Amino acid sequence: MKFFSFWRSLASFRVRIALNLKNLPVKVVFVDIDADAHREAGYRQINPQMALPALVVDDGTTLFQSLAILEYLDEKYPSPPLLPADLNGRARVRALALMVACEGHPLLTPRVRRYLDHELNLRDPQQAAWRRHWTVETLAALEGHLAGHKDTGRYCHGDQPTLADICMVGHVTAAVTQQIDLAVWPTVQRIFETAMALPEFAKAHPLAQPDTPEAMRVKR
Amino acid sequence: MKFFSFWRSLASFRVRIALNLKNLPVKVVFVDIDADAHREAGYRQINPQMALPALVVDDGTTLFQSLAILEYLDEKYPSPPLLPADLNGRARVRALALMVACEGHPLLTPRVRRYLDHELNLRDPQQAAWRRHWTVETLAALEGHLAGHKDTGRYCHGDQPTLADICMVGHVTAAVTQQIDLAVWPTVQRIFETAMALPEFAKAHPLAQPDTPEAMRVKR
Repeated sequence: MKFFSFWRSLASFRVRIALNLKNLPVKVVFVDIDADAHREAGYRQINPQMALPALVVDDGTTLFQSLAILEYLDEKYPSPPLLPADLNGRARVRALALMVACEGHPLLTPRVRRYLDHELNLRDPQQAAWRRHWTVETLAALEGHLAGHKDTGRYCHGDQPTLADICMVGHVTAAVTQQIDLAVWPTVQRIFETAMALPEFAKAHPLAQPDTPEAMRVKR
Repeated sequence: MKFFSFWRSLASFRVRIALNLKNLPVKVVFVDIDADAHREAGYRQINPQMALPALVVDDGTTLFQSLAILEYLDEKYPSPPLLPADLNGRARVRALALMVACEGHPLLTPRVRRYLDHELNLRDPQQAAWRRHWTVETLAALEGHLAGHKDTGRYCHGDQPTLADICMVGHVTAAVTQQIDLAVWPTVQRIFETAMALPEFAKAHPLAQPDTPEAMRVKR
């Protein structure tokens, strides 16, 4: 499989974690969004939508949208599972993942930032307030669903990492980058620290990638 | 099952279509977002996140996030299926659905509109330009993935409606509301018209609900 990734992309981060958890070897192609490499002809042939990540599977089919890729990997390589076995549990894990993927993350993406910058002419304090608002809103919503829930365990759902943790750590990483104090959401903070202590999560971190700019790179 | 719905909510629209396709009887509870009923104690007990829709299943568990609810319904009531049987097809359908749910829709929600209004003080022309920009961006992306693709059929994927159509019709409905001419995206337009001609889709339309304001209601 060939995986098109960018160090800072939180959607790429999700897929990196899943590939690590399932111990799947992939050829990684680094697409430098900051240099607009995702808009060049080479990558447009892979994904006409010019979005990251993309996964080209062994029969040559290109998969896109991180959550669809995660579901694919879980169906094709079921061990270890990224979803619980019971229907209610699967629905809960997917819902927690979607809270990040459909509510928090979409408002923090480069394309939105570009619109705020170029179309609405928002300057730094307003852009920072925008990012903070949507980051915090989703952190609070996650804490509301996780704290005291009977199915919350060592991780978001039980004692094994799932799709929910994979999505959540990316959102919390965005909060950390903004220097938001996590203490207000103790369950989120505890699960984030537990998950990021796993090597499969740690190695997938945006600041630990081969294409992370040298000055920012964290050695692990 | 008890289904918490609001006529104008595009996420509720998705679940209504799935319930119709699978012919599942539910007790519908109408939550009037315009009157802030989703913030009242009654609904907060159902979903502390105060978001719609929610589905309370027979054992009393509350499910939330429309795509998680759709996956649950498809796992519990497999016929007719909302996802194809093959792995690549499932990934494609989920990705098309997620393009709407994670990229188009999140920028058009009431909570974002409220932020643009109250925090950024954007007036009507700028709000309309914002809505139009994100609506069109996703329509173009969908057309790019659908037009000429070998798996595109009568519907987004093959000749049966799937999760992809369920999400797409909501996004196109938002475009129609904005009086955006669909002719630029002929594949999207064709599939939208094909799907909306099915009674299961038509009956789920935002303007055909019991809680649709009388002046706007379309009889079907």
